[in-house]
Amino acid sequence: MRRLDGAEEAELMATAHALADAAREATLMHFRRRGLTADTKETARFDPVTVADRLSEERMRAILAARRPQDGILGEEYGRTTGQSGLTWVLDPIDGTRGYLSGTPTWGVLISVADAQGPLFGLIDQPYIRERFEGGFGRAEVNGPMGRAELQARPPRPLSEAIVMTTFPEVGSPVEGAAFRRVADKARLVRYGNDCYAYALIAAGQIDLVIEAGLQAYDVQAPIAVIEAAGGVVTDWEGRPCHDGGRVLAAANAAIHAEALALLRG
Amino acid sequence: MRRLDGAEEAELMATAHALADAAREATLMHFRRRGLTADTKETARFDPVTVADRLSEERMRAILAARRPQDGILGEEYGRTTGQSGLTWVLDPIDGTRGYLSGTPTWGVLISVADAQGPLFGLIDQPYIRERFEGGFGRAEVNGPMGRAELQARPPRPLSEAIVMTTFPEVGSPVEGAAFRRVADKARLVRYGNDCYAYALIAAGQIDLVIEAGLQAYDVQAPIAVIEAAGGVVTDWEGRPCHDGGRVLAAANAAIHAEALALLRG
Repeated sequence: MRRLDGAEEAELMATAHALADAAREATLMHFRRRGLTADTKETARFDPVTVADRLSEERMRAILAARRPQDGILGEEYGRTTGQSGLTWVLDPIDGTRGYLSGTPTWGVLISVADAQGPLFGLIDQPYIRERFEGGFGRAEVNGPMGRAELQARPPRPLSEAIVMTTFPEVGSPVEGAAFRRVADKARLVRYGNDCYAYALIAAGQIDLVIEAGLQAYDVQAPIAVIEAAGGVVTDWEGRPCHDGGRVLAAANAAIHAEALALLRG
Repeated sequence: MRRLDGAEEAELMATAHALADAAREATLMHFRRRGLTADTKETARFDPVTVADRLSEERMRAILAARRPQDGILGEEYGRTTGQSGLTWVLDPIDGTRGYLSGTPTWGVLISVADAQGPLFGLIDQPYIRERFEGGFGRAEVNGPMGRAELQARPPRPLSEAIVMTTFPEVGSPVEGAAFRRVADKARLVRYGNDCYAYALIAAGQIDLVIEAGLQAYDVQAPIAVIEAAGGVVTDWEGRPCHDGGRVLAAANAAIHAEALALLRG
């Protein structure tokens, strides 16, 4: 597609923030409320969705219908809406619904805008903490409890001094879990359960690696935009682009990315 | 010891909040700062302590020396100071130092005041979120991003609908891990990695069980005070008091406590 000019980039960023503001209000309306219940999307395992996931995506879609009717949408709860502009909004109204249902502060709202090559701009919002990480169009910053700051991923350090995160200890299939453990066993510290907040922590220069499997496009596009804007690297476990999801290796820098990639390949 | 009167209880609560305010400032001074490093307290594994753990406890001890010189202190970093009043302040200046080093928002400051029978009043403070859970002396409340609210643990539900948390997937020894999995395998949802914040989520009515092993008195006394004030139950894995640490089973109510206890005993 044609290159965006500064005014178009500003309008896309403003739209992303308007979506995040609406999602923040919708998700907090139900967060930690008594009587919040979940439906499961699958019968084989507990894959929860709540009224808050749906309301959050509905509010965002209403804003896009009014403001960006020419763009496509891919959302976790309501699927794909085709557009004409070549731009697609990729929305996860609550990433980490299990964490949301448990009252934790590490679920988030993921919003990005992409062209055919992948995400151009994205944000990770944590409504309860009132913290927003954004990246793309030359911007990489966080605005939260300690004010506004530039995001900068960590410089290289050996894996033996690195911090690795993943959400579920089993990671994915047994083969995927074994690959993960080849990296984890060499790291200094492994932490579990942080959902999308783990990606934000790479961008914020706090940790070195996030390794996950079985992701969808809406789980990963906003993290890709934020981490790459902060100087990090995100690919699949073969080193290829991963904006369609699957197995994801997110790294603070190219050196630790290469070290982890070699171990994942086995 | 003799029973405390209302003025004494108010002074102890005010002191606890003064300690938490000081610890909040000390911990945030270093949180997410570039150049923060950790020493390890053990050679066999990475058991980190940072300048922030030490500063946080030093600041709290300075307040106690001025305000409560007659009371004893048990702190993670500086050990035991004997008192004459029969009251002991039990301090964990940063519970979840691994999480603190990783930039997560689920570490916390644990403060309680105890007599020989166990904790009388305790609080769990999360400085970054600016959220404080407190319980004891007839009070059970949280003050955080959504304002002030009463804490009330959940009413009974079957384990098959329950949410269980623990920090480390391996939980403790292989035998302890197997006992944990007997409970976890029957639960609806298991989440890892939340440090002391998991105990706060029981008190806040968000989850049903926290199961951990290898804890110290300073890891558990403040959670006991907060959870019991909110209507929950905390014991060891044999159903006995656990304010000296060890294996901890914290539950939202007596019914789910009993169901989990039977499985832990095997």
